[in-house]
Amino acid sequence: MKTTSVSLVGALDPRDGWEARHCPIAHTLDVVGNRTAFLVLREAFYGTTRFDDFAVRVQVSESVAAARLKALVDAGLLERRPYREPGERTRFEYHLTEAGADFFPVLVALMAWGDRWDGSARVALTHHDCGAPVRARVTCDAGHEVPVGEADLVVRRPR
Amino acid sequence: MKTTSVSLVGALDPRDGWEARHCPIAHTLDVVGNRTAFLVLREAFYGTTRFDDFAVRVQVSESVAAARLKALVDAGLLERRPYREPGERTRFEYHLTEAGADFFPVLVALMAWGDRWDGSARVALTHHDCGAPVRARVTCDAGHEVPVGEADLVVRRPR
Repeated sequence: MKTTSVSLVGALDPRDGWEARHCPIAHTLDVVGNRTAFLVLREAFYGTTRFDDFAVRVQVSESVAAARLKALVDAGLLERRPYREPGERTRFEYHLTEAGADFFPVLVALMAWGDRWDGSARVALTHHDCGAPVRARVTCDAGHEVPVGEADLVVRRPR
Repeated sequence: MKTTSVSLVGALDPRDGWEARHCPIAHTLDVVGNRTAFLVLREAFYGTTRFDDFAVRVQVSESVAAARLKALVDAGLLERRPYREPGERTRFEYHLTEAGADFFPVLVALMAWGDRWDGSARVALTHHDCGAPVRARVTCDAGHEVPVGEADLVVRRPR
């Protein structure tokens, strides 16, 4: 078995027999579609909530930040909440929704890859309770570690 | 503690005190920079090795496929290996390197998010040995599950 391939199972074998429509990876990339969107989500996980802070911290123009925030709100990953400073007009904060918070493993996996393969990385995640480095590990729901060569790609059962 | 934020620790608190240069997430997105690059890697994990197959299976033009494959080779995620069919000129296959194979958790995390939040997903990963669904879980090297609220962002120790 080639250890860097998943096994295509059932109707998915051979690969020539199907087109990757309704691919959950492609769907996710349709929703969080570019570098800036990933970095806006990074900032949301770092606790950023205000428009000006997103623009500055992602290092994009206000118009780009506005477009990305709107797209992530429309896609259901962020929600807007009104707030008002004394003497100011009502503004909106951006908070992760459940779908947004569920994106955490993606960012951890991107961070772990960069940490391993980019010597210049300056930040890392550690577990607050024990101090050990944090990673995204591929496991199955039964708790087994799953290397690529033990992963089967199957036709998804309807929910 | 806000359960959808990581805690910024030490010199990283407050967030206003630093710019996210040398961010390992941004680095990864510099290397695998767009939707097509992610989908080319998906196909490599599905066992695709030949140029024509990448173009067809990712559903992009040959020029786009060529550009993405070259970028992933230059970035060290894929390597080219020569092959020759009888009576044909030498061509090249594309195989995942160690750095490319290490991208597996990112794709699994993207797939798991799409699977959860897109009802139309048609494929999923299962563990060959036990049949349970495969996920990317955030854990620390000591084996603890790490929810967002237990993750600390720290200044990375030099290696």
